[in-house]
Parts: sequence; structure tokens; C-alpha cells
Amino acid sequence: MPNASLNIKLQRESEEPLYRQLIQQIRAQIDGGDLTAGARLPASRSLARQLNLSRISVVNAYSELRAAGYLSAQAGRGTFVARDRASSQAAQPQPPAPGTRQRATSIRQMMRLARRPGVIDFSGGAPPSEFFPVRYLQEAINQVIERDGAEALAYEAPEGYGPLRAAVRDYVRAIGIDCRVEDVLITGGAQQAIDLVLQSLLRDGDTLVTADPTYLGIIDIAEARRAQIHGAPIDEDGIRIDALENALNHLRPRLIYVMPSYQNPTGHLMPLHRRRQLVRLAARHRIPILEDEVYREFRYDGDELPPLKALDESGIVIHTNAFTKVLLPGIRIGYLVADGPYQERLARVKQAADISTPGLNQRAIHLLLERGVLAKQLERNRLELRRRRVAALAAAQRYLPAGSRWTAPGGGLFLWVELPAAGPSAAETFIAGIGRDVAFAIGRLFYTGEGGEQAMRLNFGIHQPAVIEEGFRRIGAAWAALVEEYGDVERRAVL
Amino acid sequence: MPNASLNIKLQRESEEPLYRQLIQQIRAQIDGGDLTAGARLPASRSLARQLNLSRISVVNAYSELRAAGYLSAQAGRGTFVARDRASSQAAQPQPPAPGTRQRATSIRQMMRLARRPGVIDFSGGAPPSEFFPVRYLQEAINQVIERDGAEALAYEAPEGYGPLRAAVRDYVRAIGIDCRVEDVLITGGAQQAIDLVLQSLLRDGDTLVTADPTYLGIIDIAEARRAQIHGAPIDEDGIRIDALENALNHLRPRLIYVMPSYQNPTGHLMPLHRRRQLVRLAARHRIPILEDEVYREFRYDGDELPPLKALDESGIVIHTNAFTKVLLPGIRIGYLVADGPYQERLARVKQAADISTPGLNQRAIHLLLERGVLAKQLERNRLELRRRRVAALAAAQRYLPAGSRWTAPGGGLFLWVELPAAGPSAAETFIAGIGRDVAFAIGRLFYTGEGGEQAMRLNFGIHQPAVIEEGFRRIGAAWAALVEEYGDVERRAVL
Repeated sequence: MPNASLNIKLQRESEEPLYRQLIQQIRAQIDGGDLTAGARLPASRSLARQLNLSRISVVNAYSELRAAGYLSAQAGRGTFVARDRASSQAAQPQPPAPGTRQRATSIRQMMRLARRPGVIDFSGGAPPSEFFPVRYLQEAINQVIERDGAEALAYEAPEGYGPLRAAVRDYVRAIGIDCRVEDVLITGGAQQAIDLVLQSLLRDGDTLVTADPTYLGIIDIAEARRAQIHGAPIDEDGIRIDALENALNHLRPRLIYVMPSYQNPTGHLMPLHRRRQLVRLAARHRIPILEDEVYREFRYDGDELPPLKALDESGIVIHTNAFTKVLLPGIRIGYLVADGPYQERLARVKQAADISTPGLNQRAIHLLLERGVLAKQLERNRLELRRRRVAALAAAQRYLPAGSRWTAPGGGLFLWVELPAAGPSAAETFIAGIGRDVAFAIGRLFYTGEGGEQAMRLNFGIHQPAVIEEGFRRIGAAWAALVEEYGDVERRAVL
Repeated sequence: MPNASLNIKLQRESEEPLYRQLIQQIRAQIDGGDLTAGARLPASRSLARQLNLSRISVVNAYSELRAAGYLSAQAGRGTFVARDRASSQAAQPQPPAPGTRQRATSIRQMMRLARRPGVIDFSGGAPPSEFFPVRYLQEAINQVIERDGAEALAYEAPEGYGPLRAAVRDYVRAIGIDCRVEDVLITGGAQQAIDLVLQSLLRDGDTLVTADPTYLGIIDIAEARRAQIHGAPIDEDGIRIDALENALNHLRPRLIYVMPSYQNPTGHLMPLHRRRQLVRLAARHRIPILEDEVYREFRYDGDELPPLKALDESGIVIHTNAFTKVLLPGIRIGYLVADGPYQERLARVKQAADISTPGLNQRAIHLLLERGVLAKQLERNRLELRRRRVAALAAAQRYLPAGSRWTAPGGGLFLWVELPAAGPSAAETFIAGIGRDVAFAIGRLFYTGEGGEQAMRLNFGIHQPAVIEEGFRRIGAAWAALVEEYGDVERRAVL
């Protein structure tokens, strides 16, 4: 197998980070045919020496190129130009908008590395699969088919299956939302709910304001729907009212998107006074709020707080949740509660989007709700999550770098950690962590713009306490090794 | 109960049809409180006399107002201002764009009337529920849950369940489409597939060209997505190439949408030479075609023709179909086949739209496909549809007005009938038909602009031969009664 002869010229005065220059030049040589399939690349250590670069820059570049299909690694033998690079080129024919593409690529790459067998993966957003009431669902599906026959498999009304809408009405009334059946729209999970709201209220180029950091899905939707997205900074109570007011005054957004309970990614719970301030501010500016309460039922500490919609006297809050987020994410049943003026357009957009959410799935969830299976399962999940939270906090205390900061979450799946400002970044720690078979979500993915370089989101909820401990130990070790090997100064110059 | 005192002033020189003026004035008096809940309206015959209007105008106006919740009818007692009009007002707070709203209202109204018990309903678009392989699906779901457990209920990849994508690849290869697994995207039915394509390729205000008449769903999507839609006229081979070329030259559309096989609503099959012309024309103009082949498997006469995508050498055709259209509409599984340049953006828009299509549904359909259950069921359905088509053609010949025109379809569910130009319109016949417990889809709903006044779409596929015969008999009788009662001249002046 030939050794590749690389021809790399780095511009040290360029604004482009050196490792990105390295990526671009290797890619260009593969695309241009100068490097052929099967050629072996220099070991990262020797290339780093040759180019006078830190080794982590080379490791990082190789890793991205592997994720993009340009290179392949063979354990103990080295790194090679991939045999199937032709097809990976074909999949990337258009030069897309840079922000969009880079983010999407980063996520895909990250997820791919995190899924390697043997990796303790804290990067995902899903609840643990042992929380799913699989048998109960199976039973419910069978009963629905026995009861309704072909009707369960025909088109459902776009607004949703009537009895499920009524059950949702009862459910949200119990948390203080004044609601009629007609105000409820069943959706394909909370993600579709959010997307329908954006499509109903925003035109191309309109602005949406959210917290920074925020849910990754809203950033994806804004990009896909060509909306401008602006993140107002948060404090420990959630989105900052002064910053939000400033945004409302200057950006004239069409929508505010927030997650008041156990926000993804930070885990923050917005206290009652901030909830009131937020609703009042939005009402004064007549700008609708979409509140995403998908983590609401993951509460394991403290009192239950009313959703924004329960505090809303002017009908400007749209409320979304998904029973299935906490229990059966893949079954894709969520809902929107919105007042009349929004409801009609939402129903029309929903019908255009996919006619209706599968009726069989709606009917099965309705049966589970009616029988109290979901409530019972939630109770069990909460106890288990609390146990895992205890383990995560203890492991963070013991293994994460001195000077890291986090807040103990009162609900949700995530621990949001800020690494010490002077040390390695979360992205660097991620790459080093992959080498030690541990993964987490890099904080800056959750920012609409800059920020989050030192932050990481850890989904501790999906692992048993012993696994959490071992995973946190690996992260701490990866970080310590980075500091040891490169020190702070050179590294900061690279990434 | 008080008799309402109506204060109606019709402007005969206005462009607004008289029956619409009547609707608006009654509505205004209800909204304004001049007519109160429970008040009885004059009988249609006496109001018609009083206003010097044809009775059908009054019947039509009352009927629309009933459908909109303003009036209620009590058999044998008369027509009253509805008690729940307050809530029907709340549901319609915003004055929407007229075209959009009128069409949506018409459809909802029509569907509501058609669903009255006892009505022989030819208006729907769905296949008959006795075609659904309910037990096989139940079995497949149980086997998937036994086999995959919680994994079947976790998030699926946005592009779809791998083995189903591979099965789709094999399926479309068998009809001549050169396709890789990566070119397949699983969607929530063909409706979501179409919507994703529009969202990927069109910005607000961009233009889409389709046939006129066309699938109602594409008109809905274009309205919901703020796209301009233009319908090029058809002949019996489908969309006219000269008209399409003219539209491509003058409107610079971003997309062409067609249904080459057994088009909804006309049932036309586009012959091979027209398919070739269409693909060549689009390639020359570099405008992508979305071909919707959801009725392809409803063929019961003639040879199978290649889909446009099989004739496509430049990668500009995007192909969509849904196994579930023909078999299990409510399970919502469709797919898109598109070349690389489109695929990446489609996958991103899909992920933003709803993260993924329910994995359990995908896995169950995959199992049914693999076992040949879908193929076998399709064969059975075809034979039965052919039998119903024979019945529909015989009944049309026997009962529909002399001078009506239709083409015997070689596939699909629909008979598209053009009533005699000089006689009552399809909308009038619809209203009269409802009085005789029969319903169909009014042709002009399927037009992007004007047209189709005399056309009706009859879904004969959902009924047994004896029911088809009785239904067609009622339509013929309704039409004849209209002619009898009002003659042609007055009626034409009204509607």
C-alpha cells in the first residue's frame, strides 16, 4: 500500500484555524486525485512534527475527514484514503450556506463518533429505552385493532383523533390551562408541533427569538425554514428579560420560543416570577410565545410550576408537549394547544404537511393515557432519574476538572457543565474523550451564534449509576491528558 | 320560537353572485345580533319568491351557512339561527386571504354534508377499508415488537429505517429506476413527501406548475407554503406540453408537479411519448419534476409504463410513492427517490419537520413488503377495482345525464365526469344530490384557478357494484329534478 505524499502549506496568519486548513488541503488533494484510495497517511505524530502543529490538530483533522468519508482508519495500521470516497463526494454536490452546513456536519460527525461500539455515550437527547412501556404499548395496539379494525388504519382527521384530543384537554386543564377540545392539535411529536408553529407564523426571513443556548431542534427548524434566529442570553432563571426586551424592540420578531421547564440543554427551571415577567412582556409587545414543555414530566425535585399558557390572559401563548418524549419517542405523538386565532391556520398547515398523524399510534397512546399506564410509568421513571442524577452529581464532583461549574438539575435528563475557561475547550475534550471511549454533546452546538466553547451537555439519564461514574472518569482523564500533553498556550492558538 | 325578520338587499348589478350576497347579509345580521339564536328563517321557497331569486340560490346559501355553523336545520320544522354560533364565530377570527379560505371552507363543508349517515358518498379520496390487510399488519407489528423490543420505539434515523430504504430501492429498481439506498428518504405518506420537496426547492412566492385539474393536496400545500401555483391545461394524455413550455418560459417556476399514472382527479394515464416529452422539456429548462405515482399500483388495464424517473438521464426527476396509499393510508409511510443534489437538503428538512417517521410503522411495513403480503393484497385489490369499474361505467351510461362525458379509467379509484355544458353545474347537482343522499367531489375544487364547473369526481372504488348503481341513479335523478324545476336560463344567471 503506497504511503501518501502530502503537500500541505499552512498560512499561520490566516483567520482560518490551522486544523481546518489542514482538512481543506487534504480534501482537495483527494478530490483532485493527488491522493488515491488506499494511500496511507502519515501518522498524526509525525505529520504534527513536520508541520509544526500540535498533534491534536492533526487528530482532529483526520477525525473530521474520517467522519466525512474521506479517510478510514484501521486499528494499529494507520489512516488511509477511503475506498468509497467517490460516493461521499456525490453526496455533497452543492456548496451550501456555511453556517448551516458546518453545524449539520458537526452534529452528524459527532453523533457518528459517539455511536462507536464501546463508547459510553452521553451525547444523545433521547430518554433511556428501558423507560419505554413496550409491552403495554403492544397490548394497546392489539386492543385498538381488535376494537376499531380497519378504521384505525384509515385517514385520521388532520386535527387528530377525537378522544385523544379530549384526553389532552383534560390533561392540560389539570395543570391550569383553560382549554377546549378545538384548541388541541395532535402532531407528529413536539418537533412537528414546533415546525408547524414556525410555518404558520413566520415567512422567509422573519425573526424568531429564543434563549442562548437553546434546543438544537429549533436551530435546525429555523435553518430549514429560512427564519432568522436570535438567542437572548440566559441566567440561572432562564432567558433574561432585559435582553429579550431589547431583542423585541430591535428585531421585531414574529415568535419567542422557550422551554420553561428543565431546559434543553442547560436543565434550568424558569421560576414563577420569571414566567410571569415573560408572559407580560410578550403580551405587551403582542408577540406570541411558543412554550415547549417536553421535559415537564421529568421533574424529580421541587414543586410543579404552572406552564406559561396557564398564566396567559391574552391568548398569545402556544403550548406544546409530547407524551411520547418521555416514554416512547419513536411513536411520534405530540400536541399543540393554541387559541382560536392560531388554531385554524395551524390545522391547515398540518393537513398540508402530512394529512394526519397515524391514527393507530394516536389510538394506542389514547388507550395508554386512559388506563393510567403513562402516569404510572412516569412515576417509575422519575424515581430512577433521581437516582441517576445523584450518581451524576457525585461523579461530576469527583472526576470533572477542578474549576468546572454545573447546577444540579431538578428535572430532565441533562447535566450542563462549563469547563474551566483557561483549559481545553469542550470540542477538544470531545475529541480526546472519543479516544477514551466516552462522548458528550459539545456545548456550542446549542448556541444560535457564538458561545459555549467550554460547555458540554451530558445525558446522564440514559445510563446506570456505575456507567455514569466510569464515563465521567474518562472525561476527566481525557481533559487531564490534554492539559498534560500540550499545556494551555499552544493549544489555545490552534483551536 | 320567533320568526326572523330578514333585511336583505341584493345588488343585481354586482359581480358578487346573488347567493353569496345572501350568505354575507344573513351572516352579518347574525354576527351583529340582529338575528338571535333560535330565530326561524323563512322557508327557502318563500324567501326565494320574496327576493325574486331561484330557490336553489336560497337552498345553497342556507346550506353553506349551516355548514359554517350559523344555521341549523330541523327536519320538517325549518331552518334556525344556530344556538352555538358564538363558538363558530370564535373559530373564525381572522379575515384570511379569500382564495385560500373559500376553497378550504368549500371542502370542509362538502365533506361534512357527504358524511351524513345514509349518504352514498363518492366524494372521498381514500381506498376502501376492506382493502386493508388489517390482520397481517397486526401480526407484523407484534413480530416487530417481539423482535426489536424498545429499539422499535426509539427515534428512527431521519432518512428512514435502513432495511425499509433498501426494500424501496429494490422495489423502484424493478420498475426501471436506477437507485441507491442513499437516494431513498422515508416520509409520512406521499403528502409529506410532496411537502418536503416544496419546502426544499421553493421559497415564499416561488412558482410551482402543475396540471389543471390537479391533486387537491398540492393546492393545499402551495397555499400553506405561500407558493404560487399555476395549472397548465391537460388533454387526454395529461399535461399539455405546449402549455407547460409556455409556463416554463414565462413563469420561471421552481418545480413541476405531475401524477403520470391514473391522475387524481381525472384518472388519465400519461402515455410513454408524453412522458418522454415531459422529461426532455424539464431537462432542457433544468426545472425539477416531482412525479407522484401513488396510483401506480391501482392499474387494472393495459401495460405498465415506466415512471418518469426511469426516463430521467439528468437527475431532475424526484419520484414519490406510498405503499400505504393503496393499502393502509392511516399508517402514513411513503418515500421519495431523489438524486444526491436534492437528497441532502430533503433529509435536513425532514429532520426539522418531525425528526423521523415512526419507526414501528416503518418496521411493520418493511415486514409486510418482505413477506409479499403487500404484493398479494394489491393483486386482490386490482381484481376487485376492475369489477367496480365495470359497474361504474355501466351505471354512468345508464343514469348520468345525456351529453355527459367521461373516459374509462385503466386504473385508480376515480371516474371524472363532465356534465353537459348547458345544464346545471356540478355544485348545483351536488346540493341537489345531498337532498337525495348522494355525494361526490365537485370538480372545480381540483382547479388551481377557474374551471371545472361542470365536472365531478366519483370515487367508485370504495363501493360495491350495487351501491354504485344506486348512487349514480340518485345523481342522475338529482340533476334531472334541477332541470325540471328551474330550467336552464334562470339557473345560469344565479350560479
